[in-house]
Amino acid sequence: MTAPATARRTVRVDLGDRSYDILIGPGLIPAAGREIASRLKGRKIAVITDAHVAPLYLDDFMAALKAEGIEAVSLVLPAGEKTKSFEHLISVCDSVLAARIERNDAVVALGGGVIGDLTGFAAGIARRGSRFIQVPTSLLAQVDSSVGGKTGINSSHGKNLIGVFHQPDLVLADTDVLDTLSPREFRAGYAEVAKYGLIDKPDFFAWLEKNWRAVFAGGEARIEAIATSCQAKADVVAADERENGQRALLNLGHTFGHALEAATHYDSARLVHGEGVSIGMVLAHQFSARMNLASPDDGKRVEAHLREVGLPTAMDQIPGGLPPAEVLMDAIAQDKKVKGGKLTFILTRGVGQSFVADDVPQSEVVAFLKEKLPK
Amino acid sequence: MTAPATARRTVRVDLGDRSYDILIGPGLIPAAGREIASRLKGRKIAVITDAHVAPLYLDDFMAALKAEGIEAVSLVLPAGEKTKSFEHLISVCDSVLAARIERNDAVVALGGGVIGDLTGFAAGIARRGSRFIQVPTSLLAQVDSSVGGKTGINSSHGKNLIGVFHQPDLVLADTDVLDTLSPREFRAGYAEVAKYGLIDKPDFFAWLEKNWRAVFAGGEARIEAIATSCQAKADVVAADERENGQRALLNLGHTFGHALEAATHYDSARLVHGEGVSIGMVLAHQFSARMNLASPDDGKRVEAHLREVGLPTAMDQIPGGLPPAEVLMDAIAQDKKVKGGKLTFILTRGVGQSFVADDVPQSEVVAFLKEKLPK
Repeated sequence: MTAPATARRTVRVDLGDRSYDILIGPGLIPAAGREIASRLKGRKIAVITDAHVAPLYLDDFMAALKAEGIEAVSLVLPAGEKTKSFEHLISVCDSVLAARIERNDAVVALGGGVIGDLTGFAAGIARRGSRFIQVPTSLLAQVDSSVGGKTGINSSHGKNLIGVFHQPDLVLADTDVLDTLSPREFRAGYAEVAKYGLIDKPDFFAWLEKNWRAVFAGGEARIEAIATSCQAKADVVAADERENGQRALLNLGHTFGHALEAATHYDSARLVHGEGVSIGMVLAHQFSARMNLASPDDGKRVEAHLREVGLPTAMDQIPGGLPPAEVLMDAIAQDKKVKGGKLTFILTRGVGQSFVADDVPQSEVVAFLKEKLPK
Repeated sequence: MTAPATARRTVRVDLGDRSYDILIGPGLIPAAGREIASRLKGRKIAVITDAHVAPLYLDDFMAALKAEGIEAVSLVLPAGEKTKSFEHLISVCDSVLAARIERNDAVVALGGGVIGDLTGFAAGIARRGSRFIQVPTSLLAQVDSSVGGKTGINSSHGKNLIGVFHQPDLVLADTDVLDTLSPREFRAGYAEVAKYGLIDKPDFFAWLEKNWRAVFAGGEARIEAIATSCQAKADVVAADERENGQRALLNLGHTFGHALEAATHYDSARLVHGEGVSIGMVLAHQFSARMNLASPDDGKRVEAHLREVGLPTAMDQIPGGLPPAEVLMDAIAQDKKVKGGKLTFILTRGVGQSFVADDVPQSEVVAFLKEKLPK
């Protein structure tokens, strides 16, 4: 049933008395009961998942808990971004309280980023903070949203505007589940993997350029890439848990990316988050070159790698057309604060040399977007 | 307009980078604009209040903000415990986001405990944590709920089961507003003042026995009593912010009190929170005597003082009858965890000598309640 421990990696997220382990490797869903039972004082769990993930993994997961004498209830929510709403937050809270989950028990998110963000938020507010375990089932969730404690739901005023920082007590990243992802979903998660190289790990980016096929194929290279990504995010989060400074580096590619997601109305048929980040990272490198901060060759290198793995790298690859530069700029301004015509942006001096720039002229961004938008 | 600074007291709540000041004294609502403007980087505020408080203080408060160039919006909610619901939480969050309250701006709770708990929760989750200012308008809120960072709403499963710990950035306790409280409301808040003496400040309790008339009348003695209470709570909270240990002492009288509130269906015509605490504190002293922990004389002394100020001190003073001891015990068990027939309870060895007992036999509590319930 369970994989040999040698294939497994552990990343420690160091946050004082909120520190926790991320276990990464094959067979972690079948082994979940044992891993949880050995760490949890309580014997009760509420499992939150969605209609996409439940048919694939819920039975196995519940059986794994039962085998260790853990009493569990489950709640299956609709799949998709719309589930990150107050309506579903209320139903998760209600399930958790109805199951009488108390201090030593736990709430589990079994799913991708949507389920993780929603469930983490519910765990953060039920009894003013309950134990929380993440079992991320997408590559994106394994390398990004399940690390760092950001939880939340969307509001009519914008995405993720309501939530809390609530660190999990344990993350079980079962790499076997990634085999059931569509190539497009896997690639979208890979954009975030590449991001960690581009932020401050040029060696990791070079390693990915050589080894990306093995990462896509599975096995040791994939585990290595996920562990490196989790460690990279864990290091940033440990240094700046509440995003007062350097944590902003994790937004490399996200300012342009979020604007493109908003411009395509979060229609996943047109653009998913990781694809927006891929295009956004290329744009961030190109914009940095335009500002004479980086060589244009770095942008070309980033673009070549992301294109090679099959990710979109330019705005003209988004089906259905885009609004004009000024409208994209408005979307950026809604995401980031504009002070006196200046923006905070993640720019770069080259591969692995990103930095937080807080004085980017809005007019330069608009001019750049006009150049890059499909004519 | 504003009172001389000499009449004002400041209590510092020492919580590292979440430390804050509680200003206590007359004229703080008219002076609110100045006090806030000197501490807040932003210039935008969302004020949340209720239909009971708004006609009394909202205009003055908004004018005080405007005079200092602070842009403010307000939201008036229905008064009463039912407002602590997801429905109103959603509307507060929506107001805060619609007003584009950002990191350096603030959300203000202008009201009693209900408005404070609800607004603090909304501030704790809007943008994953916004600045929060408490302007408590009841004695109970000034000495209890506005200190310590507990926020929340009620659920069908129980009171305060959904919420976060979110410390305010500033508390303005304007003692002038207490003159508009009904004597019953003032007395109910006074029960919590007396509680701080009974927990671990025998000298303060003795001072109250001598000076309670001056506290009720207003002026220096009232300010002194409020400042001592806030300092007492601040000390406990600083030592144990998330209630892992000694913070439980603040629940003296609350285990019995909550059971009585539940038994009277939170009907404020029959029993308000502070009255439940008053009876609960007397019961806690009597029960401690029954367990041979304290002298019966201490219980008599506590009862005499609370009766003298006009608070109820025995269950037979609650109009409308009470359920049998077993039903009250069930309500206690819902509030507190029962392990192997044993309860955690705040007991006492005498006035100012309370302690956390975690092995109180349930059977003893039931027998005691049977004795004390009206026949």
